[in-house]
Amino acid sequence: MKCITLVTDFSEKDGYPGIMKGVILDITPQAVIIDISHDIPPQDIRQAAILLARSAPYFPTGTIHVCVVDPDVGTERHGIIAQLGSQFFIGPDNGLMTQLFKRAVRDGLEIKIQTLQNPEYQLSPVSHTFHGRDIFAPAAGHLANGAPLSSFGESVTDPALLDFPVPTRTDRGWKGDVVSVDAFGNLACNLESEHIAHPESAEIRIKERMIKGLNQTFAEGQPGELIALLDSFGQLSICVVNGSAEKILCAHVGEPVWLIEN
Amino acid sequence: MKCITLVTDFSEKDGYPGIMKGVILDITPQAVIIDISHDIPPQDIRQAAILLARSAPYFPTGTIHVCVVDPDVGTERHGIIAQLGSQFFIGPDNGLMTQLFKRAVRDGLEIKIQTLQNPEYQLSPVSHTFHGRDIFAPAAGHLANGAPLSSFGESVTDPALLDFPVPTRTDRGWKGDVVSVDAFGNLACNLESEHIAHPESAEIRIKERMIKGLNQTFAEGQPGELIALLDSFGQLSICVVNGSAEKILCAHVGEPVWLIEN
Amino acid sequence: MKCITLVTDFSEKDGYPGIMKGVILDITPQAVIIDISHDIPPQDIRQAAILLARSAPYFPTGTIHVCVVDPDVGTERHGIIAQLGSQFFIGPDNGLMTQLFKRAVRDGLEIKIQTLQNPEYQLSPVSHTFHGRDIFAPAAGHLANGAPLSSFGESVTDPALLDFPVPTRTDRGWKGDVVSVDAFGNLACNLESEHIAHPESAEIRIKERMIKGLNQTFAEGQPGELIALLDSFGQLSICVVNGSAEKILCAHVGEPVWLIEN
Repeated sequence: MKCITLVTDFSEKDGYPGIMKGVILDITPQAVIIDISHDIPPQDIRQAAILLARSAPYFPTGTIHVCVVDPDVGTERHGIIAQLGSQFFIGPDNGLMTQLFKRAVRDGLEIKIQTLQNPEYQLSPVSHTFHGRDIFAPAAGHLANGAPLSSFGESVTDPALLDFPVPTRTDRGWKGDVVSVDAFGNLACNLESEHIAHPESAEIRIKERMIKGLNQTFAEGQPGELIALLDSFGQLSICVVNGSAEKILCAHVGEPVWLIEN
Repeated sequence: MKCITLVTDFSEKDGYPGIMKGVILDITPQAVIIDISHDIPPQDIRQAAILLARSAPYFPTGTIHVCVVDPDVGTERHGIIAQLGSQFFIGPDNGLMTQLFKRAVRDGLEIKIQTLQNPEYQLSPVSHTFHGRDIFAPAAGHLANGAPLSSFGESVTDPALLDFPVPTRTDRGWKGDVVSVDAFGNLACNLESEHIAHPESAEIRIKERMIKGLNQTFAEGQPGELIALLDSFGQLSICVVNGSAEKILCAHVGEPVWLIEN
Repeated sequence: MKCITLVTDFSEKDGYPGIMKGVILDITPQAVIIDISHDIPPQDIRQAAILLARSAPYFPTGTIHVCVVDPDVGTERHGIIAQLGSQFFIGPDNGLMTQLFKRAVRDGLEIKIQTLQNPEYQLSPVSHTFHGRDIFAPAAGHLANGAPLSSFGESVTDPALLDFPVPTRTDRGWKGDVVSVDAFGNLACNLESEHIAHPESAEIRIKERMIKGLNQTFAEGQPGELIALLDSFGQLSICVVNGSAEKILCAHVGEPVWLIEN
């Protein structure tokens, strides 16, 4: 079994992810192809990077992740293929793999990155606007078939990296930001357990609202109540029980959040 | 081939179903994983229960259905695994399997229900907010690998059950309710063929509107016409030809419907 | 590996595509089932036909495409199964395969079309409203299992065909139409490279707006700029860089587009 995942901003409406799967299966019929998400906001490289970094650790050794959020498709930017430890990542070299690279360095994983330039591993002709179909899907297929990483192109030592906001120290705790919002309207922040010495007594401030203490579960709160908890990825999340914090607070990615230690 | 299905209220936007699939494939690489729906309205256990009961009969013998609509995740409620005849159902013990249990009893199927407490069949650590990933997906994977039902936890004899509204007799027929609304805006009711002695002459009343006689097909009506028919699951369905009864009637789940015999 | 694809207007919300997959896997457990799209606008045969014709060429030899947009389900219209060269197409005989038939004739492919009337290859009973489940999914399963085309029903020589708008000559170039709009809001037209002698100097007019010259990539334009380019399927596409031409122009399928040669 070779597992290949897809993360894109294509939506499934127009068949673009389906076409990528057709291309993959035509090259490697035994692939098991899993959708992670096709509903990344259009051109939002940052949200795709966050989702990919969150999801990859739950997939099997050898999984090939194809991530295509690609506003610069057709320009000089390269496509890349990266081996980070036991998994593989394919996509444009635009920062989509930022957090994965950083984690791989931190964890001392084996790292190899190559450009995707070998025309044998591309559809022909290559369009100017759909490299998901013409370059990235075929690369995944050929990699799954055993093509060696070195055969795809040239070695890359300086992949594009995004700057992600990091929490800053305040007099009484930390200032962070909302970094992603899920379909339930839960607001995930860049504050993690390491920032929170006393979860029971910590106070969270967002949009003039104050939340006292962290919950462990949604059900500890009353329906409609604004709560904070450490979510299942270890991030501080601001939530409304059986409701949407995004809607009730009118808060979006980038909204500042203060953690106050007591 | 081991078929594993997923029903959740997670949406696919944030990758939560994809992560569950990664966990499953990591445990049982040969699984064939099928999405039934990830667009259950948030926390709507009832709609998930209806959808699961409708869908399961069309899947192969041995299919493992994982259903996660779980507002009480992280609390004392147990997860359960149920064998009902030749299929398996995994999810929180919150009523999601109500109709399946009732049908299994009615049909005299073999019924075995166990809690999901064995930490060998869970990710570690188990989060307080994403048991779909940490408990339910791993359970499906291990069951597919042949783990015996008895190894998952303790026997359950009183699973949680939901009360679903049942039609009541009136002087001239039946009063029922809209119980689900599909993406076309068709309104499915809890009235079935057994309630309708004379389909040609029956009258349906909903929202001050009267529909005379049941159609067999959509195309018998004119575009925009309000019609009633027995849908492909045997339920009375109120529809607008090439349109949405939900929008035109402004009707939702719970809307009363009268069947009048003539 | 037998690849089976699905194109429907069912949405995935209500589990209808999942149920079709259950039916297919029950018949042919080895199938690899790929979603092309379930978000065709309700009853929009034309959009499904366009999507199917665009997508099919990227799938492997032997792929079975099941396409169900079926406002006349349950009436006298037949279901059909078509072999067009090395791929197979299953659906109602309502024009969904129009462009595929025309292309197969143009390319001199082997063409065989049969009705779907053999009750051995249908669920029993067949509903009046969900032939995707009762007729088309089982047909795909049995075909994948090796059932010969001739065993499904009678030969069809005059399948239903849709009229698609074709560009017309003007004094200074061509008048065409927007024929589909994708999730990014890009407007695909029925004008192709054969209509555009001088891409650099051509002018495009739509909705009182004038676009001078075709781009090769999105990134050549400024964010928010209205551009035109030949998309990855070879069609003239009108786009807003990092935005939605659909929203900014308020343009929909059927909007006229003028190509002016200079």
